[in-house]
Amino acid sequence: MSETASSSPASRRSFIRQGTAAAVALPAVVSTLVACGETKATAVPPKDPKPATPPPPSAQQKADQMDAMHEKGIKAFPAKTEGKGNQLMEPKMEGRVKVYDLAAEELQWEVEAGRKVKAWAYNGQVPGPQIRVREGDRVRINLTNKLPESTSIHFHGLELPNDQDGVPFITQPPVKPGESYTYEFTVPNAGSHMYHSHHNAAIQVGQGLLGAFVVEPKRPLAAHKAEVDYVMVLNDGYHGYTLNGKSFPATEPVVCTQGQVVRLRFMNEGMMIHPMHLHGMHMTVIAKDGWDQPAPWKCDTLNVAPGERWDVLVKATNPGTWAFHCHILPHAESEHGMFGMVTALVVKPAVA
Amino acid sequence: MSETASSSPASRRSFIRQGTAAAVALPAVVSTLVACGETKATAVPPKDPKPATPPPPSAQQKADQMDAMHEKGIKAFPAKTEGKGNQLMEPKMEGRVKVYDLAAEELQWEVEAGRKVKAWAYNGQVPGPQIRVREGDRVRINLTNKLPESTSIHFHGLELPNDQDGVPFITQPPVKPGESYTYEFTVPNAGSHMYHSHHNAAIQVGQGLLGAFVVEPKRPLAAHKAEVDYVMVLNDGYHGYTLNGKSFPATEPVVCTQGQVVRLRFMNEGMMIHPMHLHGMHMTVIAKDGWDQPAPWKCDTLNVAPGERWDVLVKATNPGTWAFHCHILPHAESEHGMFGMVTALVVKPAVA
Amino acid sequence: MSETASSSPASRRSFIRQGTAAAVALPAVVSTLVACGETKATAVPPKDPKPATPPPPSAQQKADQMDAMHEKGIKAFPAKTEGKGNQLMEPKMEGRVKVYDLAAEELQWEVEAGRKVKAWAYNGQVPGPQIRVREGDRVRINLTNKLPESTSIHFHGLELPNDQDGVPFITQPPVKPGESYTYEFTVPNAGSHMYHSHHNAAIQVGQGLLGAFVVEPKRPLAAHKAEVDYVMVLNDGYHGYTLNGKSFPATEPVVCTQGQVVRLRFMNEGMMIHPMHLHGMHMTVIAKDGWDQPAPWKCDTLNVAPGERWDVLVKATNPGTWAFHCHILPHAESEHGMFGMVTALVVKPAVA
Repeated sequence: MSETASSSPASRRSFIRQGTAAAVALPAVVSTLVACGETKATAVPPKDPKPATPPPPSAQQKADQMDAMHEKGIKAFPAKTEGKGNQLMEPKMEGRVKVYDLAAEELQWEVEAGRKVKAWAYNGQVPGPQIRVREGDRVRINLTNKLPESTSIHFHGLELPNDQDGVPFITQPPVKPGESYTYEFTVPNAGSHMYHSHHNAAIQVGQGLLGAFVVEPKRPLAAHKAEVDYVMVLNDGYHGYTLNGKSFPATEPVVCTQGQVVRLRFMNEGMMIHPMHLHGMHMTVIAKDGWDQPAPWKCDTLNVAPGERWDVLVKATNPGTWAFHCHILPHAESEHGMFGMVTALVVKPAVA
Repeated sequence: MSETASSSPASRRSFIRQGTAAAVALPAVVSTLVACGETKATAVPPKDPKPATPPPPSAQQKADQMDAMHEKGIKAFPAKTEGKGNQLMEPKMEGRVKVYDLAAEELQWEVEAGRKVKAWAYNGQVPGPQIRVREGDRVRINLTNKLPESTSIHFHGLELPNDQDGVPFITQPPVKPGESYTYEFTVPNAGSHMYHSHHNAAIQVGQGLLGAFVVEPKRPLAAHKAEVDYVMVLNDGYHGYTLNGKSFPATEPVVCTQGQVVRLRFMNEGMMIHPMHLHGMHMTVIAKDGWDQPAPWKCDTLNVAPGERWDVLVKATNPGTWAFHCHILPHAESEHGMFGMVTALVVKPAVA
Repeated sequence: MSETASSSPASRRSFIRQGTAAAVALPAVVSTLVACGETKATAVPPKDPKPATPPPPSAQQKADQMDAMHEKGIKAFPAKTEGKGNQLMEPKMEGRVKVYDLAAEELQWEVEAGRKVKAWAYNGQVPGPQIRVREGDRVRINLTNKLPESTSIHFHGLELPNDQDGVPFITQPPVKPGESYTYEFTVPNAGSHMYHSHHNAAIQVGQGLLGAFVVEPKRPLAAHKAEVDYVMVLNDGYHGYTLNGKSFPATEPVVCTQGQVVRLRFMNEGMMIHPMHLHGMHMTVIAKDGWDQPAPWKCDTLNVAPGERWDVLVKATNPGTWAFHCHILPHAESEHGMFGMVTALVVKPAVA
């Protein structure tokens, strides 16, 4: 019924149009990076008492240097990094119970090529593994806490019995370092939900203890049929501005073929709003927090607030590589080029 | 028809589940507070030249100390503080006119136990007294200004004649210190509205000159019938992150019985959005700024922007104590535990 | 069918009600400004060794001084400044093609009387000239780059062929300083859209490279008929808090006659949300990002996020001058009076 975007990075890159701007010599880029403070002072005295000072770059050269940085980022997309979050997790079956083992532990997470950050993660992924079940399924979550502080899991959006709600000292004791804790419930309501820590959460969620919990409905609506089903977790905490745990150009493009329908499930696990803007085609909003809207409505910029989930359908009518980014521009672009909450919707031409 | 949540703090506390975590010795908490800088250096020289340095706390001890702080806050909820805002105000009747006397004055307001802040308040309450009238009522507001600067009242959301709009130098002169001013009008449109200063308002409203102005419709819809009707004013100004003028654990729980319908009226008097997240049950959004939405829609996280009012219904199907908080996590939790914009929806089991 | 608000500043001023507060002597204002640091120290020694120190102002005097500043701003509205953005641009016709020449260049822009800022602007306007075409029109945009860095134009909201999307290195090369570039397309979808730079955009758009691109539908809905059609571009970047490139009191009032319908097209080109609040009358929301909502809905405070466009209708039933502002109060008022994102809806009484 649905599949996650899965073409290889190499084939994705071919969709990025080759820029026609003239190539820029590497030293120009390097000298710009020098201006950004990335070199160190040297103690070696100059041999020539009157060294030839290079002339300052002209306006044209400066523009070329800036463009080269911009081009470099785009050409690198999707850049290879270590680790991939939000991967679909297969449950173990114990009788009719779907069992998910989640271990929370500290690790280094590569947000973009060469930039590693401290992360607290489930099963080594930021976001944690994607749990995707069906309304009415019996589910067991075994949480093991390998962190230096207590934790818990709240299933954000699921209408569970109170003792499965995951709030320490209200519905359960905290899960201490080294301990395990088991949640078990029958999945009550369909939709795009999340799971995340509810203990010291501003810090624990900010560092990566979060994931998607998608519940397929027992009776899916024909109007919601989609060939691609893509979860996009937005974040803006300790790891910077990220989509599924990565910053552009290390983000993952959403890939489809002309004529297909793409379902996007936006989930905001950050502290700020992110108005996600898709170029070239509109989005049809069908659900909020897992609940169908009374009537679908269209937009090209969807404001996603912390804790919210919004489901949209995109009818991929318009072939090409389309920028897709947060429209708070400082979350998406600097003088050094696009970064952060930027990806692309790649619509491959339908083959006749 | 409707009532405000009114069970006693003592009975509310009993709804908070007793955590099963081991009790933590008080000195652990104290030593943590010391680490937060709450003690002063002492000039007394140590008697022993080689005092026994206590070993640094182990990871386990640190986790226990953090948990103890978290537990302490939750166990204190709802914590007793001086002063209660948003209390329903009974009008004086002068013929068929409902008369409300509001005095604006400076006072100290206890936001949470032991934390008092300077406030500018109507009738000693933050938020000011709740005015609740009916569409078509004749209303008179006598404002007395006991502040050191001029003020005015704008009835935010009411479609009044221009000279009752409360904007100094546009629709009226400012009300000077020591002066009084009278507003009088026939209530034109139903819904969840607000009243607040419209003079030097970033500061005056930020310091507390605000309140709820609820207008019951002449012909209430049967579909909007609710057993509990609760106004929740969100704020984030000089007093910190507050719900009805208090920070967790001094916030007030919303209390109902299983099977009841709770109407929540969110009103944002702050400067930031607050996506309010209810655990365990969804909210059905019925009105925006006092106007019915064309069709109700469901969510569990409702983004409330400054100046907005949103009315929702919650069918209290799920018994228990449910966390209810702003999902911008730094508005709700720190390493020291939950604080700020956090309360609970307490659904008491229906007695058979 | 529609017209932009166009009465003269003089006649508009007459709609501002004369405040009845006592006049305040100018020296009071001056001394307050002194307190704000606008004068310089003088080196001339005092002649009298024991000068008479003026007594500090009383609370009453301080209140009067503050009120005088507030009054001064309101009485100045709409204040005259150099330059006006968002002016309707007439195309050149080349056959059946509507041709718009846009030159991007640096200039000084007067945001409010006496405050000039560096701006990057299209055709000397912030926002750039308003482009208003019809669904199905053939349009050509000739961009000339007179800036010291490369640029491009993205037509935000238009569903164009990929090579007209304006994203350097993805859909086109950057337009270098001194170069020109031509976009040409058949206008695909109606609604309130925008055009702006998509290169180094956080800075280029922040400095003014933005404008409204309104597409009239081929078959306008009778229910959307409006006598006044007003585009309001919100911004919060390098130029401060602005409406159509100006800060209060230099903003432009929206003027209509009682009984008319005003269509407002909010467009957010900034980095923050702006919940726009209209006094005295509600707004009926009809479209989001150029797409009709499934059913119109009412509000008085509309949260507009970056990149979003919202179209509303106001039935001007209530005569008077109505404050109209962002309800994030620090975007609209300081101790010195209203500023920034404030204007007025002026409803002139219908003449019998």
